[in-house]
Amino acid sequence: KELSLAPQVASFDRAKMEDLLKRRFFYDQSFAIYGGITGQYDFGPMGCMLKANMLNLWRQFFVLEEQMLEVDCSILTPEPVLKTSGHVDRFADLMVKDSKTGECFRLDHLIKAHLEKLASDKKATQELKDECADIVVKLDGMNKQEMGDILKKFNMKSPLTQNELTEPIEFNLMFGTSIGPTGLVKGFLRPETAQGIFVNFKRLLEFNQGRLPFAAAQIGNSFRNEISPRSGLIRVREFTMAEIEHFCDPNLKDHPKFVDVADYEMTLYSACNQMDGNSASRITIGEAVKTGLVANETLGYFMARIQMFLIKVGILPERLRFRQHMNNEMAHYACDCWDAECLTSYGWIECVGCADRSAYDLTQHTNATGVRLTAEKKLPEPKTIEFTEAVPNMKILGKLFKKDAKEITELLSKLSIDDLKKMNDELTQNNSYTLKSDANSYTLNNEMVTIKSGSKTIHVEEIIPSVIEPSFGIGRIMYALLEHRFQMRDGDEQRCFFSLPPIVAPLKCSVLPLSNNQEFTPFIKQISSALTRVDVSHKVDDSSGSIGRRYARTDEIAIAYGITIDFDTVKDKTVTLRERDSMTQIRIPIDEVAEVVRNLSYSKIEWSDVTSKYPKFEQQENAAQK
Amino acid sequence: KELSLAPQVASFDRAKMEDLLKRRFFYDQSFAIYGGITGQYDFGPMGCMLKANMLNLWRQFFVLEEQMLEVDCSILTPEPVLKTSGHVDRFADLMVKDSKTGECFRLDHLIKAHLEKLASDKKATQELKDECADIVVKLDGMNKQEMGDILKKFNMKSPLTQNELTEPIEFNLMFGTSIGPTGLVKGFLRPETAQGIFVNFKRLLEFNQGRLPFAAAQIGNSFRNEISPRSGLIRVREFTMAEIEHFCDPNLKDHPKFVDVADYEMTLYSACNQMDGNSASRITIGEAVKTGLVANETLGYFMARIQMFLIKVGILPERLRFRQHMNNEMAHYACDCWDAECLTSYGWIECVGCADRSAYDLTQHTNATGVRLTAEKKLPEPKTIEFTEAVPNMKILGKLFKKDAKEITELLSKLSIDDLKKMNDELTQNNSYTLKSDANSYTLNNEMVTIKSGSKTIHVEEIIPSVIEPSFGIGRIMYALLEHRFQMRDGDEQRCFFSLPPIVAPLKCSVLPLSNNQEFTPFIKQISSALTRVDVSHKVDDSSGSIGRRYARTDEIAIAYGITIDFDTVKDKTVTLRERDSMTQIRIPIDEVAEVVRNLSYSKIEWSDVTSKYPKFEQQENAAQK
Repeated sequence: KELSLAPQVASFDRAKMEDLLKRRFFYDQSFAIYGGITGQYDFGPMGCMLKANMLNLWRQFFVLEEQMLEVDCSILTPEPVLKTSGHVDRFADLMVKDSKTGECFRLDHLIKAHLEKLASDKKATQELKDECADIVVKLDGMNKQEMGDILKKFNMKSPLTQNELTEPIEFNLMFGTSIGPTGLVKGFLRPETAQGIFVNFKRLLEFNQGRLPFAAAQIGNSFRNEISPRSGLIRVREFTMAEIEHFCDPNLKDHPKFVDVADYEMTLYSACNQMDGNSASRITIGEAVKTGLVANETLGYFMARIQMFLIKVGILPERLRFRQHMNNEMAHYACDCWDAECLTSYGWIECVGCADRSAYDLTQHTNATGVRLTAEKKLPEPKTIEFTEAVPNMKILGKLFKKDAKEITELLSKLSIDDLKKMNDELTQNNSYTLKSDANSYTLNNEMVTIKSGSKTIHVEEIIPSVIEPSFGIGRIMYALLEHRFQMRDGDEQRCFFSLPPIVAPLKCSVLPLSNNQEFTPFIKQISSALTRVDVSHKVDDSSGSIGRRYARTDEIAIAYGITIDFDTVKDKTVTLRERDSMTQIRIPIDEVAEVVRNLSYSKIEWSDVTSKYPKFEQQENAAQK
Repeated sequence: KELSLAPQVASFDRAKMEDLLKRRFFYDQSFAIYGGITGQYDFGPMGCMLKANMLNLWRQFFVLEEQMLEVDCSILTPEPVLKTSGHVDRFADLMVKDSKTGECFRLDHLIKAHLEKLASDKKATQELKDECADIVVKLDGMNKQEMGDILKKFNMKSPLTQNELTEPIEFNLMFGTSIGPTGLVKGFLRPETAQGIFVNFKRLLEFNQGRLPFAAAQIGNSFRNEISPRSGLIRVREFTMAEIEHFCDPNLKDHPKFVDVADYEMTLYSACNQMDGNSASRITIGEAVKTGLVANETLGYFMARIQMFLIKVGILPERLRFRQHMNNEMAHYACDCWDAECLTSYGWIECVGCADRSAYDLTQHTNATGVRLTAEKKLPEPKTIEFTEAVPNMKILGKLFKKDAKEITELLSKLSIDDLKKMNDELTQNNSYTLKSDANSYTLNNEMVTIKSGSKTIHVEEIIPSVIEPSFGIGRIMYALLEHRFQMRDGDEQRCFFSLPPIVAPLKCSVLPLSNNQEFTPFIKQISSALTRVDVSHKVDDSSGSIGRRYARTDEIAIAYGITIDFDTVKDKTVTLRERDSMTQIRIPIDEVAEVVRNLSYSKIEWSDVTSKYPKFEQQENAAQK
């Protein structure tokens, strides 16, 4: 269905890219010398620097530019917090086990693989093919019963042993542990960073001097105990997220900076188009909000900003789309939700989610803790309201109930109008009312509590803010980026490289002496110090090997610029500066090169500015190589 | 003993500082609305930015300047890795439980508190006081039995309930969990980041083209299930570390850059001085290495660099010392170990460890996995060596033993000269030799294996590199820094602030319009954009309140510079620029202010450069306030 907008990536060779990533240690399986664990990766020097550069850019682009409040919250989370968020009860995937070996399979993946195999069989009827395709499309929205039925209908067996499979089992994806020495405090590794922001809402609101809207942000690791992770960096057990929670008045979701992005064009794949089998369409975000396709300006503003960020990082625009969640995949409380998806050799994968979560999270935590996670909104004009409330006599309650008095006042404050009416009746008639919590019950009389009614003038109203949540999977963006930017030199399949934008490239520059002639040494030191002084990460490569071969090695790790010191340097104090993607070279005075590379690396100038200012250096790499 | 070098910090008021940290949300207890968990903290916007700035500086100072290989490894670690490192068996603290309530107490803390209370009693004899002091000093080196004896001798009870206490129990400080859906793969949250580097040694050596020395570095979270954490950020259950593992030839621990730091003066508190009751002494690191006090140049180089970093961050030099580990507290394999300690209201606390761990870690992992974590060292000249080895006949072994053939060849390669001799004898006599692993035994004959002896010429030797490990506790450094930089304005106890160096201050600059007059708005926007363009983090404070009060609020969160827009700005396009610590102000053209603040923030210029160039602004803050 999506073919019309999906570009051709036929030339991409995943095995070749993975070999390069492994060989130059961008990342590799964790604990490999101990046999390794699936779904866990260690980032080597190049992967680590790429990731750090991406995160710095994210912080610059979102936190600093939008003046967000960044926080850094605990990973170990006590059970009640995740009970409230719904993760303890519902954060599960379905699996089946091989009834003999105990091997576990994620159920939806197993069904999909089985049906795709069936449909690809030469003897498969058109009817069977259609049925399989139909099930695969609907799989995401299916429940335990429905998937179990399909399992039985097609009589699926373990793909490894052909043994029988168990019934579907719900497997919670959180890693559990216990906190403290008693073993009694149950906790989990957080499955997302968002809850840390929600439980700090009051402190953040106060930091923002009580004003809405504001956004909080967090970069950190989360953990999900995936059933059988494969597909590399895309499905892993620990991963870095960058999340934003934008809190605003539920009735005011306009955004003051929306005008700045309204004309920005995006590829939107609406829920309707998905259901109708149509393809995604190009549309400005202004138009999308105006027509109601995107729920509100704030959501639209963030979608546009997400796209700008992804493109700045180096994601190819033609392999990026925003897909709207369909009703059956969207959480019941969400108003609207769009995923930024990148096209890779694994298909379209979700890299950033952007959801309007309404007031759900703050409401849940308010209900669970009794701490009102609300903001005050000034009314346009003061308002007179009727009220009925139970006023506790603290002196008497404290004396009689000691520390339970606190629970009693809390219970009283939560009573509904109907409860209060009933209480009033009973107190009037019997001078006795029984107040119950989950664990206790308290008998109160007219001395302990008074029901008051009346009217009062209020100037503010209490609101529970809505939350708009852009949530970035950093590892997935990185993986998509590496695929998008993996290239081969024309006519030379052995010379692969990553054309990463300089701003995120692990190292900005290499320094290459033509040979290990001692005369070059002072120049290497001079250039290296100058680059360090202007904060340009670089690598001196004084290994033997031709310049051509060393360029090829630096290209592999995406080094954007190369400075070569040769015999002319000794004579006239100039060096060669080479740009990775075009392989063009210029000749530049040694005193100027560090500043020029700095300006190139941080996008202050373009390569074309440099080639127009300095003389071209014509020697071919291959010639130099020979 | 250390009084002579310990400066007076009598004026420090911890409660006042903690109140400020909480009120302005530098950090606070995690999950407080759910009752909170001890030993876990969430960093709010100011704490998070301070931490991020410290880490960026660390990366700049160590990784980039020294061209280290930074990695980012998994937190979840399978059990065998931590079994090898010794953490599964030995990473434990002793605790006792209240025999009725089950409350847990860390044993050394309980003993120390009990004895200090005893000794402080008015009726305590000098003899008792001396005994208590003696025990407290020796506590760190005591084992389970010794502490248990003290517990009994002084008949200690639960300090909370006076109930009996259990016998000492060893409590492992790692958080356990299980990885994957079967529940069979046991794992832990890493208690330090170092192991991730060791298990990647081969990949890193290869990345460095096989050459020694090189250093790897890692910033990341580690977890320790402390028994009863108190004392704020100093003892927590999850924390950020920054660790360096410098790998070098065990016989070549000189450092090429040591000459650059040799004259650097440090406060060293040697093991001898500690034992003899002498105080620490000031000495250059060159002298310390020359006299053998510090084991080698590389260790000394890192100690100097650690001190430079800490001082750059803002730690006060007079509250910083390096304490050498005494023999009974040093790990048995370590050659030498020094802790950078900062003086705080909790006493001297370890903030950075710097140890020469010899070849211990790589040797352990080599023995456990059979993967040789070694480097090749070119011999000065080729060498002829005698060898004896068992050569397996793979064709026959493979046929007979199938996949066990691999284990057989591994076992053969590990045989000692004596084993080989014995094997040779048995094969010659009986044509049979039984090879045993932990789990299996294999009977081999002359067809399957041949013993060969001879001599060969070798050009390289295999060495297991030594590891020098500087290990930074970021939270502890941050806490010490906050204490060192907490100040009160003369004569005004209510005006507290943190005099953090601009390079780490959470925000560099504030922008303050004198009032909410509409005429100021365009200038606010102009300055804010200019600051964003030059990467200066800042905060616009257009709240009501006098300028003096707003300065006080920005001082509290350590904002280094303040730009004020007033009615003269509208007339002559100049603004006021104020420096936090001195509270002096100058008048500066609006077009120049962003660049000047940038240069101040990144230490390119000093405040004195600014005051000598621009006219002083004389109006007093308090006058402005009234």
